[in-house]
Amino acid sequence: MTLLDGRKVSNDIKNEIASEVDQMRARGEKVPHLAAVIVGNDGASLTYVASKVKACERVGFESTMVRLPHTTSELELLQKIKELNTNESIDGFIIQLPLPPQINTQKVLMTVDPSKDVDGFHPENFGKMALDMSTFIPATPFGILELLERYKVETNGKHTVVIGRSHIVGRPMSILMGRKGWPGNSTVTLTHSHTKNIEEITVQADIIISALGVPNFLKAEMVKDGAVIIDVGITRVPDDNHPKGYVITGDVDFENVSKKASFITPVPGGVGPMTIAMLLKNTLIAREQRKNKD
Amino acid sequence: MTLLDGRKVSNDIKNEIASEVDQMRARGEKVPHLAAVIVGNDGASLTYVASKVKACERVGFESTMVRLPHTTSELELLQKIKELNTNESIDGFIIQLPLPPQINTQKVLMTVDPSKDVDGFHPENFGKMALDMSTFIPATPFGILELLERYKVETNGKHTVVIGRSHIVGRPMSILMGRKGWPGNSTVTLTHSHTKNIEEITVQADIIISALGVPNFLKAEMVKDGAVIIDVGITRVPDDNHPKGYVITGDVDFENVSKKASFITPVPGGVGPMTIAMLLKNTLIAREQRKNKD
Repeated sequence: MTLLDGRKVSNDIKNEIASEVDQMRARGEKVPHLAAVIVGNDGASLTYVASKVKACERVGFESTMVRLPHTTSELELLQKIKELNTNESIDGFIIQLPLPPQINTQKVLMTVDPSKDVDGFHPENFGKMALDMSTFIPATPFGILELLERYKVETNGKHTVVIGRSHIVGRPMSILMGRKGWPGNSTVTLTHSHTKNIEEITVQADIIISALGVPNFLKAEMVKDGAVIIDVGITRVPDDNHPKGYVITGDVDFENVSKKASFITPVPGGVGPMTIAMLLKNTLIAREQRKNKD
Repeated sequence: MTLLDGRKVSNDIKNEIASEVDQMRARGEKVPHLAAVIVGNDGASLTYVASKVKACERVGFESTMVRLPHTTSELELLQKIKELNTNESIDGFIIQLPLPPQINTQKVLMTVDPSKDVDGFHPENFGKMALDMSTFIPATPFGILELLERYKVETNGKHTVVIGRSHIVGRPMSILMGRKGWPGNSTVTLTHSHTKNIEEITVQADIIISALGVPNFLKAEMVKDGAVIIDVGITRVPDDNHPKGYVITGDVDFENVSKKASFITPVPGGVGPMTIAMLLKNTLIAREQRKNKD
């Protein structure tokens, strides 16, 4: 069994990006600049954005954090997005979700210039991905592809079963694993809350990507010997024995499933750390595309 | 076994659209106007476009056929598309494919204003479909959904197997069958040229949608009793006994598979006739959206 070590790979990627940024700076070029917009004071959102800003510093990107009060109107937020769209210094930006209830999230995401949409959430970018055109791939699916690639996991002709049809993981992952090329060329089954007898499907899978958010959902008897297991679940389970009062738990019963798996991601330390690394990668790509346009 | 009669259903839809157009006219409103652009003299393309124009006449739409020589440059075609984008009289338009080799098809499709893209081929519209937003659904997948709906075929919790991952049928169909709602909420497996042991997958399917283009590919032993069979294949197979010298043949061995199926589309007369009806439906929707914008 090989552990798909997201902590190590994400560090490798950050080092590679940092080295590219060093070279940009040495050539006197503008370095990538990521902006993050956060509306309100949600604790988890502030933590996420802070870690994105910190990651930018680590690789030598410029970063800007735009903090708006929770009373911000939709119009005010749209105005801010339009400023970021036209601000030549900004290569890419993200809107941290969730947004307060007075703001229509869909309208907000539609307003982001697709060429700066490093989260890959704009329908034009999502459609390009589904149509095999080059675009920004959402960070978590992009991170999973990168893990499969760096560990040389065979996907061609394999049966991949994706659990969960969210817009940010399950749906895009099901599309990406079935695209031409590698990682891809899988036969893909997308399962979700309406799927019946899911264990009859997962037990056939060569590769399982679980993005359900139900702790320890995937048991050893649902998995065949030698399967590749990607666990995207991150649920906080209360635990008095831990200083934080909870433990981060994946969708997979790691202790038992890992005995059957050929490759498996741990939680934490698997897919999670890859997400920020791939956001940085998308921002680097955005900078290179803007440079080529100049 | 119930035949999914696309000829009948498409006629019903055209009658419904014609009646709506009559009412628009009676109220003194502008009626829908579809334009079709064709570059060159490909016989099959000319036939398709002619049948689309004829369908427009049948339901009372205005229609415009734009014929350009096969020597048309990419720039000239893009210029023509920009004219159609801004022409207030046109509600929707299509570019008949394939285009001559000097023209980049992707660039052309990207230039169509998404609000007039009644083929649903623009990445923004494709992405909206994949993200469960309202949009133009490509005509063939839209036609299949309509057939399932009018015959009240249960899709919720069923296992749908799609054969073929083309951008115009297989890929969108796999997304649509897994979306929330009805028709939808299926567990969906997308199979393609790299799929191994496809018969082991099809035999598990409650619903099979075949868009492969290989005559009589799907045999009775690949299908379970009571399955729903949607045949999107349209291949011309030479046949001296027919006045045209060929017969249109589907992907499904109809004679034997139909004995096991609960519902099945014939070829011809199944999915084929639905496509033009749904193009008209998309054009009607485009007109209504433009009216609401005025």
